[in-house]
This record gives sequence, C-alpha cells and structure tokens, in this order.
Amino acid sequence: MTTIDELETPSVLIDLERMERNIARMQEYCNQHGLGFRPHMKTHKIPDIARLQIEAGAVGIACQKLTEAQVFIDEGFDNIQIPYNIVGAQKTARLADMSMYNRITVSADHPAVISGLADAARANGITIRVMVDLVTEINRTGAPVEEMVTLAQLIDADENLHFAGILVYPSNPTIRPQLQEAIAALNQAGIGVDSVSGGGLGASFHAHEVPELTEIRVGTYVFNDWGSVVKGWASLDDCAMSVLATVVSRPTSDRVILDSGNKTLAADRINDGHGYIVEYPEAHIYQLNEEHGLVDMSKCDDRPIIGERVHVIPVHTCVVTNLHNQIYGVRGDEVEVIWPVAARGLVW
Amino acid sequence: MTTIDELETPSVLIDLERMERNIARMQEYCNQHGLGFRPHMKTHKIPDIARLQIEAGAVGIACQKLTEAQVFIDEGFDNIQIPYNIVGAQKTARLADMSMYNRITVSADHPAVISGLADAARANGITIRVMVDLVTEINRTGAPVEEMVTLAQLIDADENLHFAGILVYPSNPTIRPQLQEAIAALNQAGIGVDSVSGGGLGASFHAHEVPELTEIRVGTYVFNDWGSVVKGWASLDDCAMSVLATVVSRPTSDRVILDSGNKTLAADRINDGHGYIVEYPEAHIYQLNEEHGLVDMSKCDDRPIIGERVHVIPVHTCVVTNLHNQIYGVRGDEVEVIWPVAARGLVW
Repeated sequence: MTTIDELETPSVLIDLERMERNIARMQEYCNQHGLGFRPHMKTHKIPDIARLQIEAGAVGIACQKLTEAQVFIDEGFDNIQIPYNIVGAQKTARLADMSMYNRITVSADHPAVISGLADAARANGITIRVMVDLVTEINRTGAPVEEMVTLAQLIDADENLHFAGILVYPSNPTIRPQLQEAIAALNQAGIGVDSVSGGGLGASFHAHEVPELTEIRVGTYVFNDWGSVVKGWASLDDCAMSVLATVVSRPTSDRVILDSGNKTLAADRINDGHGYIVEYPEAHIYQLNEEHGLVDMSKCDDRPIIGERVHVIPVHTCVVTNLHNQIYGVRGDEVEVIWPVAARGLVW
Repeated sequence: MTTIDELETPSVLIDLERMERNIARMQEYCNQHGLGFRPHMKTHKIPDIARLQIEAGAVGIACQKLTEAQVFIDEGFDNIQIPYNIVGAQKTARLADMSMYNRITVSADHPAVISGLADAARANGITIRVMVDLVTEINRTGAPVEEMVTLAQLIDADENLHFAGILVYPSNPTIRPQLQEAIAALNQAGIGVDSVSGGGLGASFHAHEVPELTEIRVGTYVFNDWGSVVKGWASLDDCAMSVLATVVSRPTSDRVILDSGNKTLAADRINDGHGYIVEYPEAHIYQLNEEHGLVDMSKCDDRPIIGERVHVIPVHTCVVTNLHNQIYGVRGDEVEVIWPVAARGLVW
C-alpha cells in the first residue's frame, strides 16, 4: 500500500472519509425534504465518485458539457442533465446521437437554441428533452418569465422536443417569486411543470425554503474548498480536497515558495489569497505563478523549512481537479485509490 | 483536410504562420546579439513545436518541472535547463537518473537545496549541473549577491556538482548592477562564470542591454497573448494563439455568453478583462465561470447572434495550453496539424 509520504508533490489528495461524509449529508438533506439530488460531475469528472453518489441515492447526474456527458455515458450512466444551451449543428447532432439510448435533458433560453435542438431531433427521428432556463440575480444565461412561456410553448409544440421543466441557477430563495410566477404563467398557458431544477452550493442549504424545487444539482459539496469555507458554506473539516505541496524555497524568513502555482491550484482568489495552508493557518498565499506559490509567513509563529510538505486547501475545487491527470483518494496515511480525471481537457 | 469550420468549440487554434514568424524573429534577435536562445517549454509542452525552435537555432530548451523535462527527454531532446529548486529525495533521485544520459542544468538558491542535489548525485555516481539563482525585483526565489558566493562555493567544492553559472528571472536591465557585482564577487572567489541565463518576455527585448547575459529563455513569445499586447510586448498580429468559441446565449442585447470559461481560457485577468475578441474589439469579457464567458457588448456597434463563432486571444497563453488535451495548428482556413499537449497535467 502506498502512503501519502511516498507521493511526489504537487499531488491532489481526497480525504475519502470526509468525501463520504459530504456525500451522505447532502443526500440525507435532500431525502429529508423530498428533493431529488443530482450531483454535478464538473467538480470531479470521475465516474467512480459518481457511482458513490448514485449509490447514496442521487436521481441522476449533471454534466456541464457534452464531452463530460459522453464520458459518463460510456461508463454506464443515464439520466444526465446538461444545464446548458447546446448550440451549433455539430453539437446538436452529437446530442441527438447521445439521446438515442440515454435520457438526457438540456436547457434553452432562446428560440434559436430550441430551433437548433428541434432540427437535430427531427433529423435523427428522436425526442430531445429541454428545460427552460430562468434568469436569476447572477445575470448569466436565462430568460425572464414572460419569454419563458413563449420558449416553453415552442418546445411543447414541437413533436421532437419534450418540455422537461424549469432550470434555475443559483436557486436561492430570492428567486422564489419569479419561479412561482413562471409556474403560474405556464399553467395558465396549459403547460404543466413536472420538474424544477435548482443548483449551487450556497443555495442548496436553502432548497427547502423553495418548495417549488423538485431537485437540486450541486458539485462542490463533494470536496468543498476554501471558497466554501470563506462563504460560510462549509467548515474546514468538510474540505476533502487538499493539494500536497513542498516548500522549495525560503528566500527570506517571511517568504516561502511552494511547488504549487496556478497550473496546480488554479488562479482563483478569495479574500486576496489563493488557498489555506492547513499546517500554517496564518500563512497567506499572496501570488501564484505557474509552478510557484508565493507565501507570506510573517504572521506565523513557526516557519517551514525547505523540503517540508504542507496541505493546501484550494480556493475552487472544480477547477483544480480539471488541472490534473489523476488525483489520490486517501484514508489516514494511506493512498487507497488513484483516480484518473477521465473527463478533463476534452476538446469538443 | 479539415477546415476550421469543422472544428467544434471551444478549440485552441495556433496560427502557424504567426508562430513561425515569432520563432524566427526571436532567434534572429539572439543571433544578432550573440545570445544563446533557449525556448521555454512550459508555454506549449509540445515536442513538435520544440523541434521547430531547435531547428531555428535554439541552443537547448528550458522546462519548469521534472515531468516536463522527462517528456522532452523521451522525445530525444537534450541540453535542458530547469530553472527551479529540485527538492526532496524522490525528485532529486529522478533528476540524478535523468542526468545520467542527458545534459540537465537546475538552479539552487539555498544550501539545503544544494545539499539535496549533492546527495542524489553522489548516490548515483554522477555530476549534476547547478546554477545559482539571483534574486530580482520580483522577489520570488533567488539569493542576494553575498549569499550567492557561498552557494557557488558549495557547488564548486562538491565533486558531484558542477557550477553552471548564474540564473536570473526576469533579466531586466535593472538587474545589471547586481549581476556585475555577483560576477565580480565570484571571480574574486576564484569561480569563473561561463553562463548567465536570463528570462522573461518583457526582458528579452532588452537582453542586449545586459551584455553579461550569455543566453535567455522565453516561452510566451512563440504564441504571444493579450497580456503581452497590453504590456506592449507584442502586437495583435503577433498573437498566434486564439480560442475558437461559440456564442451560446444572448440574454440581453448587451450581454453575450461564450462557451469558453475558466476551464478553457484560464482565470487570468488583465485590465479587468479575460481576453480580446478579434471580431468584436470593443467587447469586454468581464467574467468567466467554468464553461461560460460573460461578455459585455454595450460598446460594440454590431452584436453576434447565437451560434456565431469568434476568436478570443487569451490573457496568458501558457496556462491555456495546459488546460487542453490537444491544440490545432492552422494555416488560413485549414487545420494542418493536431498536437497533443504531451507534458500537461503530469503528477510529479
């Protein structure tokens, strides 16, 4: 059995006990409130972890890209939601092909998107399942309530499309009035809403305050990260992912350089820092170059020596997994499993 | 022959004509000034591109990690500089092993690093080539002049280490006084300095103003990026890399969403933006989520429609290559070559 000490750095470690606890807790919350839970694969991109999530009781999975979905289909997964506008003849053709033998649901926020999906579905003689994406306070994708009805009617009227409900991200309680309005307007237009899918880690804790939701999709909860801790969504003990790093330089007593830069930890910042060093809680990772993490130790009583190893809890776990060919599942000091990050870096 | 239109998005394109021009120009500058040129592999991580750089006249290559170096060794490259403290028994053992049949040069900024290298070299009965890393204005790694002499003496005195000169990053003309001081101090200590290696794209244009430099290592020049343009180091015409992206949503007339987020373009920002859209120069990529690029089009006269494709010049080319399994070399409308990004995501 390989021990953590035998791993080279930088390596991404997953504390399996914490991950299992995270999986169980979120599922339990959803079970308690009669919510379907749909873990988001973008966070780990690893079929073996998805299997644990399904075994715990998840209703299906969410993927952010077609390529991600294809990897999970190849591994035997079905009931896949892709909360994204699938646009362009090549992509819609692939989606149609994937939908032939799999239950896949996508979203749409514009007639042009719906029209592209309908063309592909018709050409392949199949039905594509489409949700309507409701705009929220983050102002990313999504249509306002009045346009949603038109979109749902377009979907409903097309014999190769199936109206699969409403999609919101994030599904914070602030969205509830629009959601109620949307459901009422759709009902009035004669369109039933069977499914309302919410999402986001922060929103997930308030899902029971939005009883219109039938399911939620969350990715980050499985590992959590320093961003979740800072936002009050997780405790340090909930953070299953850490990056094992080595102190490679200590040019001054206050400055330490780790072998983990933005090709390891990703460039994300929160509170002006790039992560949390477990062994030196007062340390401040103030800058990342590609293979250098620059740390200010001036507030720390102890200082690491060159060669010392530390665990860094990264700011955003979903982009960290995506940077590595493989990550290590550990229990205590032992490496229990090595997972290839199957669905990363894929081109289409 | 595949055309660019047939590629799915997001895809990373390399304009081969521009890349070839960039390679030729930098080599010509170095030839003119009698400087050795050592392209940095971290930017592309692709052996075929390195071969073009060597054919143009490069003296060798630079790699930022041992894993990167191993990929290039396996592809027949020799004369590899790794401007990094190689720390820890596993890594120094690997370095010793790699040094057995290859000319590899590393750097060191502390006696502990030198001692680790010496132990590994002795255990393998070989000589490891070590440069001394001089601290610069960026205050990352590196020792000040007075400590450098001690470090060089330690290297020089060890029968399994070879003192291979001085390393500086970046080698802006501002470093010249310390460099002169360091060389004089080393000479006075009876240690000859055969090689002074500088680096950095911005510094490269001023390398002839620092005649102490014997060679420079630069990575970004081969593709250039929006960061280089903003800093005045490259023109838009010099940017060989672009990300082919699709407009997947246009929720308002001012807001457009691209299918390229921080898992495609990386999270880097400059001037508060995440890149430059060739077709819409006034567009502002103000936010990236994982698979969403949020663009403010309010300053643009024309607006793209859903399904339209655009070319985004990313902020930092070196971190973009690292996110993709393969990139596409294009000439005109044709895809001439598909390069796997061989040295990305490797764990040790």
